[in-house]
Amino acid sequence: MTKTVAVILSGCGVYDGSEIHETSAVFVHLSRDGAQYVAFAPNIDQMHVVDHVKGQPSEEKRNVLTESARIARGNIKDLKDLKVSEFDALIIPGGFGVAKNLSSWAVKGKDCSVIKPIEETIKGFHAAKKPIGLCCISPVLAAKILPGCEVTVGSDTECEKWPYAKTAGDIKELGCKHVNKQVNEVHIDVKNKLVTTSAFMCNSPIHEIFDGIGEMVKAVLKLS
Amino acid sequence: MTKTVAVILSGCGVYDGSEIHETSAVFVHLSRDGAQYVAFAPNIDQMHVVDHVKGQPSEEKRNVLTESARIARGNIKDLKDLKVSEFDALIIPGGFGVAKNLSSWAVKGKDCSVIKPIEETIKGFHAAKKPIGLCCISPVLAAKILPGCEVTVGSDTECEKWPYAKTAGDIKELGCKHVNKQVNEVHIDVKNKLVTTSAFMCNSPIHEIFDGIGEMVKAVLKLS
Repeated sequence: MTKTVAVILSGCGVYDGSEIHETSAVFVHLSRDGAQYVAFAPNIDQMHVVDHVKGQPSEEKRNVLTESARIARGNIKDLKDLKVSEFDALIIPGGFGVAKNLSSWAVKGKDCSVIKPIEETIKGFHAAKKPIGLCCISPVLAAKILPGCEVTVGSDTECEKWPYAKTAGDIKELGCKHVNKQVNEVHIDVKNKLVTTSAFMCNSPIHEIFDGIGEMVKAVLKLS
Repeated sequence: MTKTVAVILSGCGVYDGSEIHETSAVFVHLSRDGAQYVAFAPNIDQMHVVDHVKGQPSEEKRNVLTESARIARGNIKDLKDLKVSEFDALIIPGGFGVAKNLSSWAVKGKDCSVIKPIEETIKGFHAAKKPIGLCCISPVLAAKILPGCEVTVGSDTECEKWPYAKTAGDIKELGCKHVNKQVNEVHIDVKNKLVTTSAFMCNSPIHEIFDGIGEMVKAVLKLS
């Protein structure tokens, strides 16, 4: 039986959308492991557009679905049409789009809100006992929506290798358990069928991030 | 001795820029094989901007360097600063950006022109006997600039699997040799130190494209 996975994107580019290499790694590993996937994104404006050379916001306006279609090679659907019953699992790659377009984490941290279709989708997969794979910053969505869940965003101790380690503390303050893991490892919250891995939260060679995401995809498919 | 490879991008997205997954695969394989890489792109306007949901041009204007920076996570340089002497090899991923921004192949086919900094860079690596890796549509750059060279863009027989097979005929009309290869194979033109693979010229599962690009990267590093 071929498994089918919904992959939700949040734009195209690490600083204002989905992290491109994390998303590509998700697609490659799902394909290699024999699963099908369908990409989705919300049809909403991005919080802002970041010039990735300058690292600063520009004056442009862009749409999350339209930009996400770049990574999906045009094969993408509006998030409002995602039906949990049609999928075996959900994966949400990281990138600042998760914290800017799918939620307000980038602005408000643990006091953020999550956009309604993302909240409903995560709750829907969780209620149906279907596994959810999250990497990089996207585990904060689970921390916000599924109280008491267990996730990893890598390490809780800030250093050159783990520049975003403060996120682990925020997750703990939300009443969730944070588990330290290396970039090539995942944490599996068996009860909640949640699989998380740090990806680009770690300052690591790109092939190690690719491999960590491979472990996440494998674990998600095994749980489904 | 760590090898350093220049990777030239042409935007961000299959229909008006660099093909995202081909570029990501190049980075992952270079990293795994122990090579360093530096991304470059020309600081010019894109030919046009394609809405990847609709598959149609929009009214927007975007810059090739600025958009390429999305794939490179901000770590990118202006193509005018590329010095052949600082690198062991050159790789140019595919995507319509190659045929729209780096050349006019998308409009004029074999009668196209190649932008001057790309022509000079390819001639520079070739003259220095440093290997050049090209995938998907980017082998047409070599066919145009290095008369008599040997490349593959996959198959010369159009079918569902090979929707762009006509390109092979155009390459032959330019006086070059086209060699049919499967998506997981490369052709190596030993004399010209050219390594080519079909990538998304083939309608194939994404992990097979990833693997073909892995073969290209290995062969480029071996020749350098």
